[in-house]
Order: sequence, then C-alpha cells, then structure tokens
Amino acid sequence: MELLTTNNVWMMICTALVFFMHTGFAFLEIGLTRQKNTINILFKNIFIITVGLLLYYIGGFNLMYPGFAEGSAGVLDFAGFGITAPENGMTAEYADGGYTWWTDFLFQGMFAATAATIVSGAVAERMKIGPFMIFTIIYVGLVYPIAGSWKWGGGFLDQIGFYDFAGSTLVHSIGGWAALVAVWLLGSRIGKFKNCKPQAIPGHNIPLATAGVLILWLGWFGFNGGSVLSADPELTSLTLVTTCLAAAAAGVTAALVSFLKYKNLDLTMFLNGILGGLVGITAGADVMTPESAIVIGAIAGALIVFAVAFVDAIKLDDPVGAIAVHLICGIWGTLAVGIFSTNPEHTFLIQLTGVACYAAFCLVTSFLIIFTLKKTVGIRVSEKEELEGLDAHEHGMNAYSDFRLNDH
Amino acid sequence: MELLTTNNVWMMICTALVFFMHTGFAFLEIGLTRQKNTINILFKNIFIITVGLLLYYIGGFNLMYPGFAEGSAGVLDFAGFGITAPENGMTAEYADGGYTWWTDFLFQGMFAATAATIVSGAVAERMKIGPFMIFTIIYVGLVYPIAGSWKWGGGFLDQIGFYDFAGSTLVHSIGGWAALVAVWLLGSRIGKFKNCKPQAIPGHNIPLATAGVLILWLGWFGFNGGSVLSADPELTSLTLVTTCLAAAAAGVTAALVSFLKYKNLDLTMFLNGILGGLVGITAGADVMTPESAIVIGAIAGALIVFAVAFVDAIKLDDPVGAIAVHLICGIWGTLAVGIFSTNPEHTFLIQLTGVACYAAFCLVTSFLIIFTLKKTVGIRVSEKEELEGLDAHEHGMNAYSDFRLNDH
Amino acid sequence: MELLTTNNVWMMICTALVFFMHTGFAFLEIGLTRQKNTINILFKNIFIITVGLLLYYIGGFNLMYPGFAEGSAGVLDFAGFGITAPENGMTAEYADGGYTWWTDFLFQGMFAATAATIVSGAVAERMKIGPFMIFTIIYVGLVYPIAGSWKWGGGFLDQIGFYDFAGSTLVHSIGGWAALVAVWLLGSRIGKFKNCKPQAIPGHNIPLATAGVLILWLGWFGFNGGSVLSADPELTSLTLVTTCLAAAAAGVTAALVSFLKYKNLDLTMFLNGILGGLVGITAGADVMTPESAIVIGAIAGALIVFAVAFVDAIKLDDPVGAIAVHLICGIWGTLAVGIFSTNPEHTFLIQLTGVACYAAFCLVTSFLIIFTLKKTVGIRVSEKEELEGLDAHEHGMNAYSDFRLNDH
Repeated sequence: MELLTTNNVWMMICTALVFFMHTGFAFLEIGLTRQKNTINILFKNIFIITVGLLLYYIGGFNLMYPGFAEGSAGVLDFAGFGITAPENGMTAEYADGGYTWWTDFLFQGMFAATAATIVSGAVAERMKIGPFMIFTIIYVGLVYPIAGSWKWGGGFLDQIGFYDFAGSTLVHSIGGWAALVAVWLLGSRIGKFKNCKPQAIPGHNIPLATAGVLILWLGWFGFNGGSVLSADPELTSLTLVTTCLAAAAAGVTAALVSFLKYKNLDLTMFLNGILGGLVGITAGADVMTPESAIVIGAIAGALIVFAVAFVDAIKLDDPVGAIAVHLICGIWGTLAVGIFSTNPEHTFLIQLTGVACYAAFCLVTSFLIIFTLKKTVGIRVSEKEELEGLDAHEHGMNAYSDFRLNDH
Repeated sequence: MELLTTNNVWMMICTALVFFMHTGFAFLEIGLTRQKNTINILFKNIFIITVGLLLYYIGGFNLMYPGFAEGSAGVLDFAGFGITAPENGMTAEYADGGYTWWTDFLFQGMFAATAATIVSGAVAERMKIGPFMIFTIIYVGLVYPIAGSWKWGGGFLDQIGFYDFAGSTLVHSIGGWAALVAVWLLGSRIGKFKNCKPQAIPGHNIPLATAGVLILWLGWFGFNGGSVLSADPELTSLTLVTTCLAAAAAGVTAALVSFLKYKNLDLTMFLNGILGGLVGITAGADVMTPESAIVIGAIAGALIVFAVAFVDAIKLDDPVGAIAVHLICGIWGTLAVGIFSTNPEHTFLIQLTGVACYAAFCLVTSFLIIFTLKKTVGIRVSEKEELEGLDAHEHGMNAYSDFRLNDH
Repeated sequence: MELLTTNNVWMMICTALVFFMHTGFAFLEIGLTRQKNTINILFKNIFIITVGLLLYYIGGFNLMYPGFAEGSAGVLDFAGFGITAPENGMTAEYADGGYTWWTDFLFQGMFAATAATIVSGAVAERMKIGPFMIFTIIYVGLVYPIAGSWKWGGGFLDQIGFYDFAGSTLVHSIGGWAALVAVWLLGSRIGKFKNCKPQAIPGHNIPLATAGVLILWLGWFGFNGGSVLSADPELTSLTLVTTCLAAAAAGVTAALVSFLKYKNLDLTMFLNGILGGLVGITAGADVMTPESAIVIGAIAGALIVFAVAFVDAIKLDDPVGAIAVHLICGIWGTLAVGIFSTNPEHTFLIQLTGVACYAAFCLVTSFLIIFTLKKTVGIRVSEKEELEGLDAHEHGMNAYSDFRLNDH
C-alpha cells in the first residue's frame, strides 16, 4: 500500500510534467516563427491538448493497451473501445503496484498529444487550420495508439524484443514521419527558397523559444522518469541522470559543431541540440550507463547541425527543425539502444526492424490522410493569407495587438 | 510513518503547484490587458501573494480552521488568532497522517491569496492601487477565512452537508462575487462602451495569456489533487482525471459554441473555456465519474461564451472575463455536485443554500469595503491616469522600456 | 525500502525544481537588461547549465564530496576524480536511505551551475562571451566544488561547526564574491554613470523578469526543501514555511522601505526584495522558527534597498542587482544563523569565520581568473559592440527579429 501510494505520487507528478511540456512546445514554436502566425500556432497547440486527451479517453487508451489475445498477430485490436476501469484498477494488483488505472490513463494521455504537436511545428505558417484539426484527430485518435500498441501494448514488435523505453520512436518518430510527409506535401513557405538557396526566416521571440526548450527539458524529467512506470529509486534516478547528461552533451556538441561549421555562437542550434539529445536518449534512458548517455547525446547534437542543413538542402521547409530533432534523432536514439544498451538482448537489427515498421506505417498513414485532405479541402492557405498572416485570416486577432514602443 | 511521509510529499508538491498558479494568473491578466497597465497588474499580483501569505500566517489560518466548539453556531471563532503549531502537528496523528501542520498551513495559505487575484483581473486598468491593497488586506485577511470556516473549518454549512471539494465556491465564487461588486462600483474603462455597444479592447500579449492558462491548468493538478488532503491513490488519480477531462471538454465546447455563434476560431474563448471547466469541476472533482466530469466541463464551456456576452450586455466591464469564469462557472460547479455527485448525500438544494449564503456574505462584505473606499479615498484613477496608463502614474516605470524594433 | 523510495521521489522533484530555476534566472536577467543583449544572456545561461552539469559529472561531484580522510586538513582532495557509483549507491545504506547516489549527483549538479549564473547577471551587457565561458568552466568546475567541500563535503569548516543549510554562502555568496570582482575589473556600462551620478538603464521585459522571480521562488521549494536530503515530514514542511514567509516578508519590506525612501511603488525593488529574502533564509531555513524567518526576511528586504543604492554609490555597475541579492543577503543569512538558530551550537563567531574564509578564497580565485583573462584575451567587448549590442556582434542574431507593431 505505501509503495503503491509512493509510486502513484511519482507517476502523477510525471504526468503533470509531461502536461507542462505542451507549454514548452507552444513557446518553442511561436518563438521560432513569425509574429503574424502566433495565434494560429497557439490555437493548434491548445486544440491538440484538449482534443487529444478527449480522444484518448474515448478510445485511444484501450486501443493502445488492448491486452492482445494469445495467438493474435499483435497488430490491431478494437475490442477494448470505450473506457471502463477494470475492477482491480485502483489496487496494488493493477500494474504491479506501480500506479492506478486512472493515473495510467492520464500519463499515457499526456503522451498522445505530443505526436501531433511535432507536426504542428513543421507545418507552421502555411497550413490551413481546418485540415490540420482533421489530421490531428485521425493521427492522435487512431494512428498513434495503433502504432503504440505494437510495442507498449504488447504487440508484435514487443514480442520480437524491440525496445523503446519512453518513445524516441513511438512518440517522436511517429510525429517526425508525419512531419516529413506534411512538409513535403505542403511545400515551402513563400520566400524560403530563393534561386534554390534556403533563406533564414527569423522567428519573433527567441526568449520564449529558449524558455520553451528549458520547459521541455524539465518536462522530460516526467517523460522519461515516468516511463519507468514506478518510483523505483535505482531506475528513476539513473534515468534522470542519463536524460540530463545526454541533453547537456548534445547541446554543447551542437553549439560546438555549429561554431566550427559556421563560425557563429548560434543559440538556436544550441537549443535544438539539447532537444535532439533528449529525443536521442529517450529510447534507452533506463538501459544506459551515464557515459553512453553522453556519447549518445553528443552524437545527437552533432547530427542536429548536419540534419538541419540536410533538410534545407533537399528543399524541405521545416520552420522549427522538427524533422531533425524528432525524426532523425528519434531514429538515432532507437538504433543507439542496439549499440549501447546494457541489456544484451537488445540488438541493432531488431531496433532497425522496429524503426522500419514505424517508418512504413507512419509514412503510409500520414500520406493517406494528408494527401486526401490536399485533394479535397486543400491544405494550404492562400498566398494572400500566408503573406498577411494566419492570425488575421483564420482567427481575426493579433498576438500583440496593443503592443507599443516608448520613445527612446 | 512511511505513509505520512508520502502524503506529506504529495501535499508539499501540490502546495508548490498552487503557488505557481500565481504566475499563471499574472500572465493571464497582463496578456489580456493593455501594455500601459502591465507593471500595475504585476505589482498587485506580487502584493497579493506576499501579503496574503503573511496575513494567513498572522491570523487567517486559525480563523479558517477554528475547531468550532460543540454547540457553537459555526459562523465565527476568533479564539485561535495568532499561530502556534499544536503539539501533535508534526506527527501522523495530525490530520490523520495526511500531512504536517506546517504543510497544512502553507497549502491553505497558497489558496488564500487566490480570491483577491480574481478581483485584481476584473478591476484591471482603472482601479487605484492603494484602495486595492486595502481591499486585499481585508478580503484575504478576514472575509475569505471566515467564509472558508463555514465549510472547510467545520462550520454550519459543513454541518448541513454542503459540499465544495476544492473551492468552486469557497475560492472562486468568493473572488467572483467581489469582482462583480467591484466592477459595478468602479464603472467601465473609458472607451469600453460606445453608444451602449461593448467595444473590444484587445490585450497586448496573448502568448503570455496562453501560457498563463496552461500554467493555471498545471497548477490545478495541485489545487484539486492536493484537496484530497492525502496521497490516496484512488482519490488523487480520479481527481486529476476528472479535472483534466473537464478542462479539455470545456475548452473544446467553448471554442465550438463560439465558432457557431461568431464564425471565428477564437483563442481567448478557448482559453477562458478551459478555465471555466477547471472552476466548474473543482467543487466535485473527487465525487464525479469521468463521464460526468466531461458533461460538467462541456456545460461550463458553453456557459462561458454566453456569460461573457451577458456581462457585456449588462454593461459591466470585466477585462479578463473573471466574472464569467470564476463566479458563473463557480456557481455552476457547486450546483453540479447536487446533480452529478456519486455521493447520494449531496443534494441540489443544499448546494443552492451554500451558494446563496456565500452570495449574501460576499456581496455584503465586498460592497461595504469597496463602497467605503469609494466614498473616502476614492477607488478610480483619474481620466488622465487611465488614458496614459497606470504604470507611468502609479509606478513611474514601463513594462518594456527598452523594447525596440528591427528594420524589416 | 518504502522510505527510501519516498525520500528519493522528493529529492528527484526537488532536483527538477532547482533545474527550473535556471529558467527563472534567465528570465530575470534578460528582463532587467536591454534588448540588444538578450541572445547573449540566454546563450550564457544555456552554456552554464549544460557545461556545468558535464563538469560536475567529470569531476566536480567527487571533488565536492571527497570523503576527507581522517586527519586530513579538510581543504582539498582530488582522489575521487572521475565518477563511479559506489557499490551501495542505489541502496538504502547510501545516505541513510535518503536517496540514491545518482539522485545525489543530479541534485548537487543542479546547484553547481547556479554560482556562475549569478556572475552572468552582474557582468551582463559588456563582457566578452569567450572569457566568460572560460571563467565559468574554472569557477564551476574547480572553485565551487573545492569551496563546497569545506562544509558540505565534511571539510574543516564543517568540523568547526559552521552551518549553511542550503547555500546562502556556499552557493549565493560564492557567486556573489565573484560577481563583485568581475564587476570591478570590468567597469561600468557606457552611460551608467554621468558626472558620477548613476543613471537608470531600464530593462526591456519586466513581465519576464517578474515571472523569473516567481519561478525562482518556486524553484526554492526544491533548493531548500531538497537540502533536507530526505522527505522528513517535519523538517521539509518547516523549511518550506520558513522559506516562503521570509520571501514574503522581504518583498513587502523592500517595497515599503523603497516607497518611504523614493515615494514610488517600485516593482523591481519588490522583486529583488523577495530574492533577497530567499537568499537570506537559505543558510538556516531548517533551524528557524517561522517568526525568526519573518524577521530575517524583513531585514533582508530592507537591506536590499540600501545595498542597491550602496553598490551604485561606490560606482559599481551591477545591472540586475546580483551583488545586493546574492552577496549581501547571502552574508546576512549566514550570520543570521548565528543569531536566530534554534540550535544552540550555532554561533555568530563561527558563522563569521565561515563567511571570511569564503570571502578570502572567492575573492582571490575569482580575481586570479578574471584578472588573468583581462590581461591576456581581454574581458570587455569593444565600445562599438557594446553600443550596438552583443547579440549582433557575438551571435549574429536578434532576440525579436520579426517583432512588428500593429497600427493603432
């Protein structure tokens, strides 16, 4: 009883921290983009959290943790649709005394919305909000929980030994693949490429973007720490240490590589480096030595610098670097488990298999959704709307209406 | 001992989260108002937290939890004035092992300041700061703890079975009634009503307002979660689930109703909807099924849209929507306990009685305080001060003095 | 086992809260300074956190907690350089069941970076970033852990009975002394003193500065609460109460004294007062009655007003008031233990001895580092860079590039 209570307290706190990450995502996205689209981004973020949570309640949770019947393929099971707490859901029996069923639901529900948030950043400043909302509903309501069930729900990837502790693939790459498809189908923002050369489009509020990254790092205490699914002192404290060291190493490496490459102390790269390190350590935060965590982070940090340049080079326009951070570092982190894990059962090949399965599923589903939307309602705002800003056209309001300057 | 420790840890975390709500309130208020009054609002908020906590230490806590003598009317007991920890205040005996006496004080102290903060938003941009400080001292120091003692202190409303889990009435409506009186006695801001038609006066920083709402939602994990007064796994996790689902349902409903009514994707309404849902679920968060929580939230969300319009229609000028959010949704949430509670002892009639008692007490006391202030020192700044901003006149400083634009 | 788990949960949460303080420091520093140096300050803060944590991992932690051999002078012990968890590091044996070795590392690591952050604020707007980074590496990597070992690592000051609960001296004054030296060697910003009179140089974002102080206060729940090194209900809850009451009393006193002195409701002084109270209570938060905490806070609050004026008067330019807050209130808090402690073994003389030892060590080491940097690479940016801003010259970017005004 005491232990259930303590575990449950830890899980509830982690839930709160993961919830707070949405503030971090919102700050990061608006900070790195232009002022005229701020309200639109905030609206999308608030939409994702609220609708995501409701969808997860209506069906997502049971779809993701279906308790696959023995002998099932472990791919899909709609049986549990609709939500009722099991009889032992509030007792120490449920989840081995780790937490109650409701805590389980809420913790996982906070994760669900994240996948769509990643896409939101990548499509910022030019996607119509209606189709984005439809995409969110399908992706968070169906694609994410089905994909999640393959590993965390005990499905076929879990059965072959694929490992993803807290979601380098199951959360971040799932979002990242869809971001890739969306950015490709959507095209780049007006003015992003001139004579085939990428142009910097500076954001409007770097202090908020920086705070966003720090809030995300804070939230990762819960994201990874809570993924232990108990307050086990050894595992939770090791997880927080690997998480923080990877973030630190990645940030420093990204800043350093970026300095060597561009001769500039680039704050944005520092920040994206930190995020890349966090995404990278997430798949194996509980099965790494701190030294491995630093190596994984450092590689993630270096990757970020080249990945951002690569995305630019192939003419994809990703305003916040979501593909580099969430997709590329998500893949890296998942594969890194096959290299650095202290658990000898984790192998590179199986990790690669998992990455490939998710790539296929997410590319196909997100393409189907977004392509259909493109051919029916359209996904891109008009040129006029894009130039004048989505805030004015989609929301009829401005983020800083009454802002004024003093005479200097 | 172990359980006391765990319970106490949970209560301390909830205390920290409720404290953090003051950052949320501050962000919300300054975000939705004009730049020229920002320093004034921040000053008021900082004043409320610091002075509120000191007042609660000096007398409020004991006034609110007086341990009414048997046979007393349960209305008022000054006996406990001044603060000394009881002998068993640090042991598991105190509060049934839920927490220590000092944790109790601090958790409740963080609540105390909230009532005045609600008023602060409603009177923003035109009330003199001196009278506001006097009002705060009396309202937080005396009115709030006396009113609180009627239910949470074991007073007469508790004895007849009135239920208010975490303060839809005891915190939010107590603030809301005073906000109503203050707004009425104060009059509307210059330019708010032209030819009897309400004019939008847009705020200056919607990103901070949005962050404020997310921080408030986060804080509500502690506000409601801590009101369980222990870390009981079943009750705390259920409470967090009902709280979050109500918030989500309310936000979505408010956005939807507002879209249908005004053909606009209104972020501010989305945000106020979330707050309305949070206030609405607060009275019964621990005695609701999640389905009921969604219904209560959805109704609160719809209410917000109409309530904001109604407050405008009766020519009250409430810059941040405090009356709609805290008073109207507070009443709704309290009555909803009488409809949806899983505890059959909760009845609509008794809930209504409680609402009526608090209405009477708060309307009378806040009228007496504010009317007296109006007739003596005056409560409204001069027209010149209002037009030029309270920051310049009351504080001699500007919120963004050195802010500059780049050449574009 | 249960108790270890609960204690460890508390310590992990406190670690997260102390980490969050870096967001508070960043907001405070950029808010109180000019827009043109915002990126530079954010970069420094991110650098301090990431590099600080890595350095603490590589050597700082073991240098600070060396387990001085019996009979050693307790001054310096490099033996433990490099990090390996002890065999019992994950069991209840380690640290008396308070937490695991990894939690210990991470909690202390979050503290380590703070000292350099304090200096960052004081040297803002004019120091070259390269030398600042070198200073940070040496100060966080060597000076802080060596100095820390004297008390927290069981060194000679611990052996004579010096007391510093959570770091009024060990964290705040260590940073404060270096800030003093740095400000003196660096000189004042262009335009700060005209005809020997200090000129106000207003910051560019007071809302963020205010949020920064509230986040710091929140973080102090972990800073002081975690310094109990267990979740002991009595000590942790008392510590949070003394911490919050001191902060509140200090804020109110600073606002009041400042009002009496300058006839102005000065928000910045209110905020710095709160910080002064927090720093002041930190040395003895667990050995004070709440009444003593209020007195200590009130004196700290009054001190702040005069200290800020005094620093100005001796022609030191400290843009954020770091010397007044961290050094002067840090000294006050450490001495206050000798006056108000409930533990009769704490004496004023020994506290004074501790203060003097740290003063000597920090003044000498920081002078050696910064003076060497000044004479070799130089520590001050060129006049042109200072006037045009460090963001443009050191980072090639602007904090609010795309910020625009609406037509009013």
